[in-house]
Amino acid sequence: MTYPKIPLAQTVIQLCKAKNIKHIIISPGSRNAPLTIGFTNDAFFKCYSVVDERSAAFFALGIAQQLQEPTAVVCTSGSALLNYYPAIAEAFYSNIPLVVLSADRPKHLIGIGDGQTINQKNVFDNHILYSANLKLDLKDENNVSEYEELPILKNLENKFERLLGLQKDIQTYNEEEINTAINFSVFKKGPVHINIPLDEPLYKTVDKLSVTPKTIDVSIKSNEIEEYVLQSCLEDWNSASKKMILVGVNYPNEIDKKWLEEIAQDDSIVVFTETTSNIHHPSFFSSIDQIIAPLSDEEKSQLQPDILVTFGGLIVSKKIKQLLRKYKPKQHWHIDSKTANDTFFCLNNHIETSPNQFLEAFLPKVTHYVKSNYKTYWRVIKQKRLKKHKDYLEEIPFSDFKVFSKILKSIPNNYILQVGNSSAIRYTQLFNINKTLEVFCNRGTSGIDGSTSTAIGSAVANNKPTVFITGDLSFLYDSNAFWNNYIPKNFRVIVVNNQGGGIFRILPGHKNTENFDTYFETNHNYTAEHLCNMYGFKYESASNEDSLKLALKAFYKEDDKPKLLEIFTPKHINDEVLLNYFEFIK
Amino acid sequence: MTYPKIPLAQTVIQLCKAKNIKHIIISPGSRNAPLTIGFTNDAFFKCYSVVDERSAAFFALGIAQQLQEPTAVVCTSGSALLNYYPAIAEAFYSNIPLVVLSADRPKHLIGIGDGQTINQKNVFDNHILYSANLKLDLKDENNVSEYEELPILKNLENKFERLLGLQKDIQTYNEEEINTAINFSVFKKGPVHINIPLDEPLYKTVDKLSVTPKTIDVSIKSNEIEEYVLQSCLEDWNSASKKMILVGVNYPNEIDKKWLEEIAQDDSIVVFTETTSNIHHPSFFSSIDQIIAPLSDEEKSQLQPDILVTFGGLIVSKKIKQLLRKYKPKQHWHIDSKTANDTFFCLNNHIETSPNQFLEAFLPKVTHYVKSNYKTYWRVIKQKRLKKHKDYLEEIPFSDFKVFSKILKSIPNNYILQVGNSSAIRYTQLFNINKTLEVFCNRGTSGIDGSTSTAIGSAVANNKPTVFITGDLSFLYDSNAFWNNYIPKNFRVIVVNNQGGGIFRILPGHKNTENFDTYFETNHNYTAEHLCNMYGFKYESASNEDSLKLALKAFYKEDDKPKLLEIFTPKHINDEVLLNYFEFIK
Repeated sequence: MTYPKIPLAQTVIQLCKAKNIKHIIISPGSRNAPLTIGFTNDAFFKCYSVVDERSAAFFALGIAQQLQEPTAVVCTSGSALLNYYPAIAEAFYSNIPLVVLSADRPKHLIGIGDGQTINQKNVFDNHILYSANLKLDLKDENNVSEYEELPILKNLENKFERLLGLQKDIQTYNEEEINTAINFSVFKKGPVHINIPLDEPLYKTVDKLSVTPKTIDVSIKSNEIEEYVLQSCLEDWNSASKKMILVGVNYPNEIDKKWLEEIAQDDSIVVFTETTSNIHHPSFFSSIDQIIAPLSDEEKSQLQPDILVTFGGLIVSKKIKQLLRKYKPKQHWHIDSKTANDTFFCLNNHIETSPNQFLEAFLPKVTHYVKSNYKTYWRVIKQKRLKKHKDYLEEIPFSDFKVFSKILKSIPNNYILQVGNSSAIRYTQLFNINKTLEVFCNRGTSGIDGSTSTAIGSAVANNKPTVFITGDLSFLYDSNAFWNNYIPKNFRVIVVNNQGGGIFRILPGHKNTENFDTYFETNHNYTAEHLCNMYGFKYESASNEDSLKLALKAFYKEDDKPKLLEIFTPKHINDEVLLNYFEFIK
Repeated sequence: MTYPKIPLAQTVIQLCKAKNIKHIIISPGSRNAPLTIGFTNDAFFKCYSVVDERSAAFFALGIAQQLQEPTAVVCTSGSALLNYYPAIAEAFYSNIPLVVLSADRPKHLIGIGDGQTINQKNVFDNHILYSANLKLDLKDENNVSEYEELPILKNLENKFERLLGLQKDIQTYNEEEINTAINFSVFKKGPVHINIPLDEPLYKTVDKLSVTPKTIDVSIKSNEIEEYVLQSCLEDWNSASKKMILVGVNYPNEIDKKWLEEIAQDDSIVVFTETTSNIHHPSFFSSIDQIIAPLSDEEKSQLQPDILVTFGGLIVSKKIKQLLRKYKPKQHWHIDSKTANDTFFCLNNHIETSPNQFLEAFLPKVTHYVKSNYKTYWRVIKQKRLKKHKDYLEEIPFSDFKVFSKILKSIPNNYILQVGNSSAIRYTQLFNINKTLEVFCNRGTSGIDGSTSTAIGSAVANNKPTVFITGDLSFLYDSNAFWNNYIPKNFRVIVVNNQGGGIFRILPGHKNTENFDTYFETNHNYTAEHLCNMYGFKYESASNEDSLKLALKAFYKEDDKPKLLEIFTPKHINDEVLLNYFEFIK
């Protein structure tokens, strides 16, 4: 087998292997050559080449999102790694294990005017679980040149320190740091940064490993809930007649069905889910905004719960956030083994365990249902809204709203549905989703910067077919997502093209002025067609109901290329149709 | 006139105006709406809309590079601003004044699970001259909602602090911070970050300003050189028979012609310039690698200077760095009013002034030329190399090397020449450049991530026509550069397409294996044609000498669209032609 000669590169690669990091996304470079050589020559790893580091990191994020296992990105020194930052922040807030391996120059070549050299140490400090700043091992025979180049004093200093035993053995230090970083990514779920100084010569290989790094395991902290916490929760629970459960971004099948059934029995509980909650039950409320947008203040106060229980990641619906901030629940419990956001300024209980563990420990202890008309009241409203929703769809013209209703219905069973920010996910939230779909959206930072790359990474990692729905700006932003050789033939993209940032028409700006068109909506006439031709996608388009119907008919059928369907909607009526919707369903 | 209602937005905008920041590059968003409204409604500012923040920041960098005046980028909260980071790092190492204005949520809405919210405070810490973290002024009537939403205790705390006078007046604090940041960008030349918390409602406007922020000027520190420094320099200078001046990235016309003439008279001085030095004299050595690459160790030691004087930014030539690190000059002086890199591990004198000021103070005091054959010796070698260079061009086939010789010759007088990293600038360095050209390249971080956007920004800011020469990977990386409405018709792009990262074939890797092709060279068959069709460029291509000659004939002629010429070169011989060159010219 072929290994890079540099022991530090061997160490990194072997520890990735020991920690079962399989998917490695590599961007080209010279400084990272020892890593690239090592990863690509070991069949244990599945390597991918993606040139644009911004796209590469989101691609990796998509893989890690699906596998819920750490996935690594590898890049050269310099500004390359800064392009990872948007995906790192997304991973940070979405709790996705992303391992950043950046090659760096040796310390004595930093800050002296060498090319492709920046200050990489701790550069992601604001959004990283752990930064391991590895050290060049001067004992490594590969680094003899180091001695020659080092200013005499620094070199002597180094030698003295070592003679005096002041320096911790560098190999041990590096192994510990790598272990710690990867362990953090696994158990704390999120991004970590391992910065790896590598000195020339970079391309030498050997056929035997020269180091055998030690793997350090972590003992998983038990997440059992203390009895007194449960008791205190139970007391409050059993006396509250208005309980709301609100679920944020949540992985499919995270919660056992039986607990959902159990919850569904209780009339004192209203469960609000989002498209990204991946939780379904006929008695839950899956379109939050549809329910609450038209409410009067009086009605809103009716909804105010005694106890609000939240779990999962970030909430999409701004309207529920506004409502619960104004009509604060008396108690807010958040269940999560890692963090708890005080989203409504009334968080009083962070239950540090997984939601399923909590329900398992808690629900069997709930001995009776509190008598309540809380759910019934809202069920009536929900039925009324659903009826009106249907009526509305009948009467509206071709528009974003109508298009979303059609395309969401068109998706075959058991697809992965990836949704872009920001209009795309907001529209999606207004419809009932086929419950065999698994829905994902980058809601950690809610950026439009890497949704396509994430969707492609997800499609690569998952055997299920993936459809990605996005707006035009988000699609154009991440057009480099198509620049790789791994896009599965069954990958499908739907671009809802309203010729700009349609969401700005819905916000309270000053519409239809030149300033608005240019700086808010950022009007344009681009289509996805040229990009499809360039990157080997089959392109189809639609601009009215008939052509959409026709296009959707064959869209999911097998083909020898991935496909993109671009739907042009009339931007000047989209906002009206949406805003009228909330009036209509009152 | 229309102003944003929020006083903090007014403050930022007015101070930008007072500090003469004219060019504002805006990316769409809602949180930054008050800034967008303010900038775009004031005719003092020239605003640009660029959606992709990565491209927007490089576009701004190109403007700032040309004007040498601070240029601002404006974006919304969340991951948007992380996309600025590659350009910020480039600005940091290239000393370009880039002012980053990021909208942020108010402090109490950060870290509680709201959308598009990250930890923006000091996020660019590793590569920024100054970070101004502005504060929301709670006295501002616009922020009444703040009180309502704030948890009672925090609110009380706030009120008490103010009653007790513990809080510095927030408006004053903000004004001082903004002034300091912009002053840093001007006088220290580089990027600064102003983070601006803005609370809803964001879209309200007023027709009268409610604040009149105070402008704080900075007194420019005199850069006069102390007499004893000059004297000490003179003593050494007058006794050294081998003096080398090496010029890094340098603006055109930075050095008065008379000093260049003066230096050119002295046979004990060898002046090495790079393409990016923008300094020309027949007796200077403008192709460093051409001279030194073929040298034997014996000859290299002949070149070893007694005194090395450097000025300007980063050095492109790796070969001169290697040589001077091995054959260290006895003294190394760097002239720069800001920083001095110890590039060769022997810096002993940082002369803190501008190069021209130094020469003006120093050269008139040099009373005699030290007798020396230093320059004559190298002039002979230079002549020999130039002759061989010509001969070589005659005999080589169509290749990157030949293409660069042809395209560099084709550029009409008085163009701005923007060059991409990394092969592009390295090839360019091997040829004598038309001295009426002004040459720029992002050598701060030497990244391939934003060269096209920088070139377009430069073309927008400068009346002279601009031609941009780039490789295919760098071009594809920054393809979003074309996604804006400001590209001048006379803008010209030349893509030298060798179907991958040609530079990796030159590096000591393992060529022609599947691993090499995929992960180092990143082989591809993409062309720029689809992107040209998409973004309204006239596209031409060439793949041999005849078609290239034909294409170049009309390429610079006026047209109603910007033009792109793509030249396909045979990747399997490019590296050989280059490596043989250094053998041939021995």
